[in-house]
Parts: sequence; structure tokens; C-alpha cells
Amino acid sequence: MQQCLRVPTFGAIEAGGTKFVCGVGTGPDDLRVTSFPTTMPAETIARAVEFLRGETLTALGVGSFGPVELDRTSPRYGHITTTPKPGWRDVDLAGELRRALGVPVAFSTDVNAAALGEAKWGAGRGVGCCLYLTVGTGIGGGAIFNGVPLQGAMHPEVGHIRVPRDRAIDSFDGVCPYHGDCLEGLASGPAMAARWGIEPRELGPDHPAWMLEARYLALGIANIVFTIAPARVILGGGVMHQTQLYPLIRREFVQILNGYLRMRQIAEDIDGYIVPPELGDRSGVLGGVALAMAGSR
Amino acid sequence: MQQCLRVPTFGAIEAGGTKFVCGVGTGPDDLRVTSFPTTMPAETIARAVEFLRGETLTALGVGSFGPVELDRTSPRYGHITTTPKPGWRDVDLAGELRRALGVPVAFSTDVNAAALGEAKWGAGRGVGCCLYLTVGTGIGGGAIFNGVPLQGAMHPEVGHIRVPRDRAIDSFDGVCPYHGDCLEGLASGPAMAARWGIEPRELGPDHPAWMLEARYLALGIANIVFTIAPARVILGGGVMHQTQLYPLIRREFVQILNGYLRMRQIAEDIDGYIVPPELGDRSGVLGGVALAMAGSR
Repeated sequence: MQQCLRVPTFGAIEAGGTKFVCGVGTGPDDLRVTSFPTTMPAETIARAVEFLRGETLTALGVGSFGPVELDRTSPRYGHITTTPKPGWRDVDLAGELRRALGVPVAFSTDVNAAALGEAKWGAGRGVGCCLYLTVGTGIGGGAIFNGVPLQGAMHPEVGHIRVPRDRAIDSFDGVCPYHGDCLEGLASGPAMAARWGIEPRELGPDHPAWMLEARYLALGIANIVFTIAPARVILGGGVMHQTQLYPLIRREFVQILNGYLRMRQIAEDIDGYIVPPELGDRSGVLGGVALAMAGSR
Repeated sequence: MQQCLRVPTFGAIEAGGTKFVCGVGTGPDDLRVTSFPTTMPAETIARAVEFLRGETLTALGVGSFGPVELDRTSPRYGHITTTPKPGWRDVDLAGELRRALGVPVAFSTDVNAAALGEAKWGAGRGVGCCLYLTVGTGIGGGAIFNGVPLQGAMHPEVGHIRVPRDRAIDSFDGVCPYHGDCLEGLASGPAMAARWGIEPRELGPDHPAWMLEARYLALGIANIVFTIAPARVILGGGVMHQTQLYPLIRREFVQILNGYLRMRQIAEDIDGYIVPPELGDRSGVLGGVALAMAGSR
């Protein structure tokens, strides 16, 4: 008699403000994905459910745009909360998916999910603790310690840290509606576009904009490194497609530390300390798989 | 027949650059302490061993001045490393104590130990994750997540984060030998003394120095809160004996966040969010007891 053993498989959703990426699998080698635009909640969630319903899932992992509620003691756990995106405010994303699919749902921020994907299968594997920072429409970060997103009383909002600036060099006021010239206000993609009056990707690679951008990002990274000391820093997001930024950021970062932090990883191999992601545009959806796996242990 | 059950007891050392505080007990109610000046290593360690040797200890916890090596995979784990303090460079403090006393030694930084003491028995108890920041000769911090010090590839060095400053208001260059005007360079006790030409405690409570000090500390705290989101922030150290700082720091901190972070603990009770320590000068040695307890589980 033959026994049919079903290999456990996992569902994943990278719920972005522009598109949803849904996946099924157990890792990079067997992941099957689909994606579609983020329209209104009912329609978008229905399309995700339709894709995932045919599978025998052990669990589903969701990394969502936010702000989201991650406090498990809150009645709004798993909700998207105060987003300005039409229709999505106060949507119980995790709850609706759980009820429709009948599987446990592990829920986190989109950035935490991408960080987890990179930590498990990408640039952060094997280092114990890594920081993933995305620099694009906004600046966001997630830190993974021993396979688990670092989570205090809420998720990290490192994009909004303040860094020193010299107004004699840069008189730009910043674009953050809350803080003006916080890191996101000074160095996100929209901040660059507003400062230079042109989309960042239209600036030539030798434009002085990149030197200033590298300086602000290095100051932000240094502040985070002084606080949580990750063993590796992974920089992703649209702005980081400008690969000339990596060596500039490394140089500024080393200058800012000025020999103070005696961390082997930095002293011995700065090129291996501040690195690009390895999973390309699959960090987020693979992070969803990793979330589902961790949540179902 | 009467059975003699020995209650497990723990040893603790707060190894400071100026004095050693040694304790024996299981918590604040039964702690017995002694203290003596930090002289040369052999003599100082011998005095600690003499005090602790008579006890039947389950384990010893040591919070030490630094820099220290906390990487357990390093052959120098438990050492004080590059300190300028005469005689103490490369001293294997944890190893010497373990060999002399024959008990397991849990080893961390002085600030992590104080943070752990406050988290277990002081101002941080019951909140899950808290930050302890000491503002004195230097600025140092420790974060405790679920009873364990947050530890990346090395201990936190949050005193050296950078914060924005307006040189039109404050032209002081800062005193940090590595970074000049990092947080410690701008806001430690020696920084205040150098800026104002007078010891901080000699400044009247209404001196404008305190407003500037509160601003820098609030900027530093905001950066850390954006990064790790502690559920409570405990501010200790000599400079914080100036209790007029607490309300000034809270006000500046709320202004800096500007309503962005939707953290219940901040929104509902800012007075209970940024608080003084509760264990007074026993945070460190009680933290040693907590370290010993955690290490012997």
C-alpha cells in the first residue's frame, strides 16, 4: 500500500499599496507567484483568495503596507489602520484572509517581511542579526534577530530618525509632512525629486546629488548601527537601484564611525557589511513564506 | 529528620571604573552589598573574590565598565579590552572570577546590567521591552526585550548617535574624541561642563543649559524610539539627578515626534513613558543578580 505524504506548503502575500504579489511554496526554488494591482479591498482580497484557495496550505504569511497593527493584544491586530489609501483604512486584512482560507495567518509589515526573506534566503543568511533598509517612496527598516523581526511596542519607524545637516550646504526643508527634514524627509525618492526638480533616475550617476544622498543615508545607518549593531546592513528599494550609491555610502559610513566601533564585520570587510539585497523583487513574497513558516512552528 | 534545603543565592559585581560594588542575594529584599575603590586588577579582583567566596553561589553576574568583549565565539569573551584605565587593558575579568570562585559567570556591560536590574525589579518591570539610558560621564544605553539584553554583533553604543543641531544657537564643538558633536559629545556631563565652563550641578535649575540639554537628549531618545520602540524609557546617571530635566525632555520628545508614532504608551501617558530609575544606586548590582539568574537558567 502506498502512503501519500503531502509536503507542507505555505502561502505568502506581499500586500503593497500599488500591487499585491501572492506566492505558494517553501522557498526560492519552488515558489510560484502571481501579482495584480491593488484596487479596492474586497476585490483585491478576493483575487488573492482565489489564487491561494486551490492549495493545501499549512499557513499564510502576509507582509503589508501600513500603518498596520502588530500588537497581538489589540482587537485591531492584523488591521491596516490609518492609511490615506482610499478604502483601505481599518481593513482587517489578516482576519479576512484567515476566515476565507481557514489557515493560520502570520502578519507583519512589508519591510519586516522583506527583511525576513533576505535574512533567511538572501543577503542576510547566516549572520544572526541583520538590518534591511528600503529607500524608495519612503524609507523603512526591519531588523531580524535570530530569525525573528525585532519588535518593541510597535514596528520600527527608522525612516523618521533625525540626522545632522549643514544648511549652508543643503538648505532644502525636507518633505516629511510630520518632521520636515527627518531621514525620509531628506533622502527618500520623493525628497530627491523635490530637491533637484527631477526624478532621481534622471540624474546622471556623477551628479552631486548622490554624494549628499550617500551622506544622509550613511548618517542614518550609523545611528541604527550604534543602536542595534546588526552584523550586516542590506539596502534595497528603488533609490538603491542607483548602484553607485553603495561605495559612496560605505565610505561615508566609515568616516562617520571614525574608528570608534570595534566590530569585526565592519573592520574586516566593509564591502560585505553594507550590501544590496539578493532576492531582487522576491524579497517581500519570500518573506511572506518565511513568516508563514515561523508562525506555524 | 530535618532536611536542610539551601535556597539558591547569586553573586553580583558592578565593576565600575571608579568602584566595584559586590552583592549577594536573590533580589532587592535580601541583597547584601559591599563596595571598594577600583585599584589595580589583581588587588580589586581579590577583594571581590574574598567577599563572594564565603557564599554558596549558584552563579555570578558581572556588569563591567568597558569596552568589553561580549561575543561568546571570541577567545577574548569576558575580557575588558581597549580601556585607557591603567592596568585594566585586556584583563580577563569573567575568566579570573570563574576560576577563583568555581561558578558560572554571566558577563555584560555595566549599562546592560543596570538596564536588566531596572527591567526586572525597577521602573521597567512588567512592560516587556524597555530602554535604560545613563547620562553622566558618558552616555550609554541598554535595551531589555523580554528579560534579555538586546545584543546584535556587539553591545549598543547609543551614546554615539548623531543628532541635528543648530550652530546659530549652539556653536559648541562637542567633546567626543572620535566624533566631536555626537550625542555624548554634546550632552554628557563633561560636555556640559566644557560648554558652560562650570560643573552641571553648579548651574541653577533655571539656567538655559537645561533646555538645550533636554533638546539633545530628546532628539537622541526619539532616534532610539524610532529604531527599537521600547515600551518605556528609563533615564539615569549623574546628569539626570537634575530632576527638572524630565519634564523638559518629555515636552521636547513629544514635539519632535509631532504625532507621528501611534504608540499607546506615549499617547496615553508620557509621564509614565520617560521615567527615572527606581532602584537608585542599586540598579547595577541588582542587574548583576538578574544576569546571574538568567545565565543559570
